Amino acid sequence: MSDITRRTFSKKLAGGVAGGVLTTAFGASAKKSGRELQKDKLGVALVGLGSYSTYQLAPALQQTAFCHLAGIVTGTPSKRSKWQQKYNIDSSHVYSYETFDQIAEDDAVDIVYVVLPNSMHAEFSIRAAEAGKHVICEKPMAMSVAECDAIIGACKSAGVKLSVGYRLQSEPYTQEIQRLVRENVMGNINFVSADAAYISRGNPDQWRLNKALSGGGALMNMGVYSIQSCIYSCGKNPTAVSAQEFSTRPGYFRDTDETITAQFDFQGTTMGHMMTSHNANVNRLYGSGDKGWFELNPANNYGPLSGSTSEGPLSFPHESQQKLQMDDFAKHILTGSPNLAPGEMGRRDMVIVEAIYRSIREGGRRIALDLPERYGIVDR
Amino acid sequence: MSDITRRTFSKKLAGGVAGGVLTTAFGASAKKSGRELQKDKLGVALVGLGSYSTYQLAPALQQTAFCHLAGIVTGTPSKRSKWQQKYNIDSSHVYSYETFDQIAEDDAVDIVYVVLPNSMHAEFSIRAAEAGKHVICEKPMAMSVAECDAIIGACKSAGVKLSVGYRLQSEPYTQEIQRLVRENVMGNINFVSADAAYISRGNPDQWRLNKALSGGGALMNMGVYSIQSCIYSCGKNPTAVSAQEFSTRPGYFRDTDETITAQFDFQGTTMGHMMTSHNANVNRLYGSGDKGWFELNPANNYGPLSGSTSEGPLSFPHESQQKLQMDDFAKHILTGSPNLAPGEMGRRDMVIVEAIYRSIREGGRRIALDLPERYGIVDR
Repeated sequence: MSDITRRTFSKKLAGGVAGGVLTTAFGASAKKSGRELQKDKLGVALVGLGSYSTYQLAPALQQTAFCHLAGIVTGTPSKRSKWQQKYNIDSSHVYSYETFDQIAEDDAVDIVYVVLPNSMHAEFSIRAAEAGKHVICEKPMAMSVAECDAIIGACKSAGVKLSVGYRLQSEPYTQEIQRLVRENVMGNINFVSADAAYISRGNPDQWRLNKALSGGGALMNMGVYSIQSCIYSCGKNPTAVSAQEFSTRPGYFRDTDETITAQFDFQGTTMGHMMTSHNANVNRLYGSGDKGWFELNPANNYGPLSGSTSEGPLSFPHESQQKLQMDDFAKHILTGSPNLAPGEMGRRDMVIVEAIYRSIREGGRRIALDLPERYGIVDR
Repeated sequence: MSDITRRTFSKKLAGGVAGGVLTTAFGASAKKSGRELQKDKLGVALVGLGSYSTYQLAPALQQTAFCHLAGIVTGTPSKRSKWQQKYNIDSSHVYSYETFDQIAEDDAVDIVYVVLPNSMHAEFSIRAAEAGKHVICEKPMAMSVAECDAIIGACKSAGVKLSVGYRLQSEPYTQEIQRLVRENVMGNINFVSADAAYISRGNPDQWRLNKALSGGGALMNMGVYSIQSCIYSCGKNPTAVSAQEFSTRPGYFRDTDETITAQFDFQGTTMGHMMTSHNANVNRLYGSGDKGWFELNPANNYGPLSGSTSEGPLSFPHESQQKLQMDDFAKHILTGSPNLAPGEMGRRDMVIVEAIYRSIREGGRRIALDLPERYGIVDR
């Protein structure tokens, strides 16, 4: 990323907090920095104890160096005691959705991680910000760009940090692709491709297939990975997108999109296409440049990822992606290191999601996008 | 392939020769069968001695069991003696484009392989048929569906066999994908993807980049492979297609399409997307079914191809694809074995090419296709 990008980001951040509290050199809000700076490990409260919290986030928070599991928020009473026992959490750090706002007074909790169905992301991210907590919001960031704006605004007003659950931004294979692109190792990247899909089976009434709760099907779930992959594989934001929808199991996918393809124009210098589906198994990214190519396959699962370039295979040691992600965000809060997945990135992806749905409604028409030139709000 | 397919094919063939000569049980025309059945190796004349003839076809014809290089047709006098010497070809089997029709009297030549720029495919395929020779026409079959119809009609009228230069139809990795699909090993194939592209450099006036000679750019060249790959990866013809065009090097690709993406609806039971480009390096196919997946990468080059399935890696011994292709066609003529790449297949692909260009002209609109249900005109 260029200096320009860094300046743009700094300016944005400065602008965003103008009406709120001051941002310190360490990136923590003035209100909270005193307390946080005394800590070497921030406390995280998980909101929503579904399978992602249970099998990914809570175990990861046992490995993190800069944060730890400090509280839980659940609507299911039976989960309370199980989690309290397993993770040694005192009742004073356990909340229901109704009592959630009392978390404001809980000094053990510095970060709230919203792991709820998409329709609840905005509400709980905003309530967390208003409680003075830093926020990680699971992807997709929200149901709409308008909701993303509301979350970003609430976090800026409260002077808290905001991150989207893009664990791959902290993942070494992904970061290597980003480095290859940033350092122009393959020359101009002419073509990128990303497919992210799995076959959804089981209960057709699961929340991901219920539009009121999910906001959309494959695109809102796996499609966000394809969008992310295409963008970091060329290091640019798209200037236009077109898209198509396909249905091969309409009886099962009654309420949400099953399969979507989209094509990106990246500023006239890279083209990309993506596919996402709840009815296929594929998980990969590919980029072709003037001087070489790279690919990851799998590209988006919980790892270990795998990949190669025109120079040979890639190999990085595997660590929990969620551990890396949450430590990166905690370091951002504690030390002012870059926020690898800021709210603006989640909002950018939601702009693209909305354009994709619009293109589909309009018969595959090319939709122009008005986004900043570079993908990265973040410089490293 | 089903019996229905075989019946459809037989009926088509019978219909096609109704006004011409009779087709024998061995598949050779009545007019020629006597002479051919005395031969155990058919003679092939190459029309056009460019790099594909020089480096692929002529060497392959030194390895073939059922055919051999018997004649040449060239517009470049300097190539005559070089080829005659290298391949021991008597002057009586050497033709210019002007004297080409005299090949009718050349009993050493049974098959004419048209290896000219696309704009000359129809003319020389038809002249070959009218000279009573079986025809292999290099891909893409012609400049338009109308030209394909003219070629098919000429071959039927003359009672000669017609094949398109789809060497991969004879290639073992490709045939293994076709078997997996035909035998339903992966269950219903929900998704197929094929990208076929290379970075074109050098003389921007080469015939492939001259629309008058090529009929189109990447789509007419590599795109035909993507179309073929998508179709044999699900075993069905598409019922609709949408497409987009991208340009990242307009100064170089002044006259023809650089990069095209397309999306296929295969009868509501498989969706596919493809990309083709003269400005990216990628060459692969992928299919995902209810019970597994397969991929080839590379999928379309001269080999050896490489690939794997959800069951493990694929491994087949490498042979010249052109050798396999030409022997398959010679066997078809000599023994009535299936024509693996009949003219109807080349025409089918040109119907799709025309629909892709039309969709691009019409802003990415979905274009319905009226094609037979199964991809294979051929049963094995």
